[in-house]
Amino acid sequence: MALKVARRGQIPPFIVMDVMRAAAERAAAGKDVIHLEVGQPSTGAPQGVIRAAHAALDAQPLGYTLAFGNEPLRQRIATHYKERYGVTVPAERIAVTVGSSGAFLLGFLAAFEPGDRVGIAAPGYPCYRHILTALNVESVTIPIDASTGFKLTVEALNGIENLDGLIVASPSNPTGGVLSAVEMKALIAWCKQRGVRLVSDEIYHGITYGTAATTAADAPEVITINSFSKYFSMTGWRLGWMVLPPDLSRPVEVLAQNMFISPPTLAQVAGLAAFDCKDELDANVARYARNRAILLNELPGAGFDHFAPADGAFYVYTDVSRYTNDAEAFCRRLLAETGVACTPGVDFDPIEGRRFMRLAYPGTEAEMVEAAKRLKAWKK
Amino acid sequence: MALKVARRGQIPPFIVMDVMRAAAERAAAGKDVIHLEVGQPSTGAPQGVIRAAHAALDAQPLGYTLAFGNEPLRQRIATHYKERYGVTVPAERIAVTVGSSGAFLLGFLAAFEPGDRVGIAAPGYPCYRHILTALNVESVTIPIDASTGFKLTVEALNGIENLDGLIVASPSNPTGGVLSAVEMKALIAWCKQRGVRLVSDEIYHGITYGTAATTAADAPEVITINSFSKYFSMTGWRLGWMVLPPDLSRPVEVLAQNMFISPPTLAQVAGLAAFDCKDELDANVARYARNRAILLNELPGAGFDHFAPADGAFYVYTDVSRYTNDAEAFCRRLLAETGVACTPGVDFDPIEGRRFMRLAYPGTEAEMVEAAKRLKAWKK
Repeated sequence: MALKVARRGQIPPFIVMDVMRAAAERAAAGKDVIHLEVGQPSTGAPQGVIRAAHAALDAQPLGYTLAFGNEPLRQRIATHYKERYGVTVPAERIAVTVGSSGAFLLGFLAAFEPGDRVGIAAPGYPCYRHILTALNVESVTIPIDASTGFKLTVEALNGIENLDGLIVASPSNPTGGVLSAVEMKALIAWCKQRGVRLVSDEIYHGITYGTAATTAADAPEVITINSFSKYFSMTGWRLGWMVLPPDLSRPVEVLAQNMFISPPTLAQVAGLAAFDCKDELDANVARYARNRAILLNELPGAGFDHFAPADGAFYVYTDVSRYTNDAEAFCRRLLAETGVACTPGVDFDPIEGRRFMRLAYPGTEAEMVEAAKRLKAWKK
Repeated sequence: MALKVARRGQIPPFIVMDVMRAAAERAAAGKDVIHLEVGQPSTGAPQGVIRAAHAALDAQPLGYTLAFGNEPLRQRIATHYKERYGVTVPAERIAVTVGSSGAFLLGFLAAFEPGDRVGIAAPGYPCYRHILTALNVESVTIPIDASTGFKLTVEALNGIENLDGLIVASPSNPTGGVLSAVEMKALIAWCKQRGVRLVSDEIYHGITYGTAATTAADAPEVITINSFSKYFSMTGWRLGWMVLPPDLSRPVEVLAQNMFISPPTLAQVAGLAAFDCKDELDANVARYARNRAILLNELPGAGFDHFAPADGAFYVYTDVSRYTNDAEAFCRRLLAETGVACTPGVDFDPIEGRRFMRLAYPGTEAEMVEAAKRLKAWKK
């Protein structure tokens, strides 16, 4: 008898991971690849973190921690809110998680029932929608485009009703859009007025090219999520955190105990040192800024001249409609013919994304220069 | 307006984590604690893993891996099945996960719909039930007791109907019961005949005191789950794996991409070395055997003389009904009055567990001797 495969598990792939695999296969076949597909820093963790990790490896057995993480790390994150934003967040509201991924899963489970409706921007991070689907929560697509500056503002919410939750990301993946403090406050108020649980994805905080990003963590009803993967350059360490509303703190703690036991211990111990590595981390951001400038200057010469704002994160989300209505095939051909790996917009927006492509620029300057050269030659 | 807190997120705590916190608070207050509450090796990772971790920290940026983990590690796990069990498991069926916890979550989501019924033994690992509840899957309690040798055999399944899944753990937490090869084969056949998806929790494999445990991984329809946390002594590294049925492989990969991105990279790279640390790891098991002998010899002197079999894992699950019908209060008092931290049976069996207590013995021999002494003095 054939056994059941659950429908809810049959969610769409996170396409960028499939692009990664195609790129890895090409590299394994001895061909070169310029990786503009993956949204992760090309740098490793800062040196202070590496040193702390060496020390911890020799000092302690690295057993489980409490489900919400080590106390010193939770305290340090609380201090970070004071230092960076001037916002007071008690350590008791902070949960250390297995990447921001773990935070989304726990937050969604604690806040939303099966059948609930949660608003997400399109284009937006695809895993929101996929995780919600796997948890039997309905995602309500909120189109954002050039008319709202590719930002999820209250204007974009016009006519959207009966939401139980709303996810906003600023800076946004893939658009790079950054909400102003006024726009964020308006969103928080919009949600509060309607009893909508706001989830603020702040994982690209620290990586902006104009105004710094605003946190929602001072609004106690908001689930605020952050990560060590982007600004702190610690992707593979799988470490993130969330600031929890008091009413969700115990449910999330219990879910975390049962579903994760605890976040990785070495990452927690070493991650504490990341907050003292500002110079090295800001130098990474300065490199992203140079890479961004290279792409924004050069891409128009390859016919890619309509972008989302790119004010934060490390992505250019570009219109490719002059070349294709099938960005997935376009990206496959681009990889095969030039070795440049990019992510099709359909990963971020199943409908309009067919006309868009995301270029991730956390790599080296030389890679950006070479990628731009190849794109221009390809489209000449 | 008060925001919603999802009912499904309001699952019971994993009580042992709360006991851990009480024990930690006692320790922080300057009082001594003997930790018999936590099911984790007191040792750290083996030296070969520590060396590999040092090397990897200096060698590579530790970015994301593929969602199913590094290829060399998947290959090495496949070889492990050949070496330890003489069983051929292709590496393509192996998914590296964020601890066995991540494997349970992914496996349950891929295999079971909301409303499905999954059989679990009581007493058994509480997180099965809690994770299933959070995912809106109904758990069907299958009582096991002295009459079935505290083992989930086909005999225990008499009269159980309409299951979509069944979880079996051998060696079992908390009982230490180990299924024979014949018993495991009978369970696999029982499930296959009825279209029931079997999940085989094998995380205590390698820690047995008589016959070695049998794997279910050669039955391609079974979800087989294992971990680096127990035999390999790498709890805080958050690394596990699952052997997937071919029909669940792609759904689980996609779920893993979306919910985890990838397991911790340093743990994967270093964990590869764990398979070459057999001498050190077997010395740990020899210590568990000595600890077990101490408890089994000494506990009757404290009036704890009815145990589950304790043939594997590192637990003694003892009847405490001569002293109490409220194991939770009993364990609190035990900690307060003697400093010995144990876990009440209600964590593993909400009904009968009120008459049981779990002692975990992965600690040092000196701790076992001291714990036994205090228990005897307390109950004199």
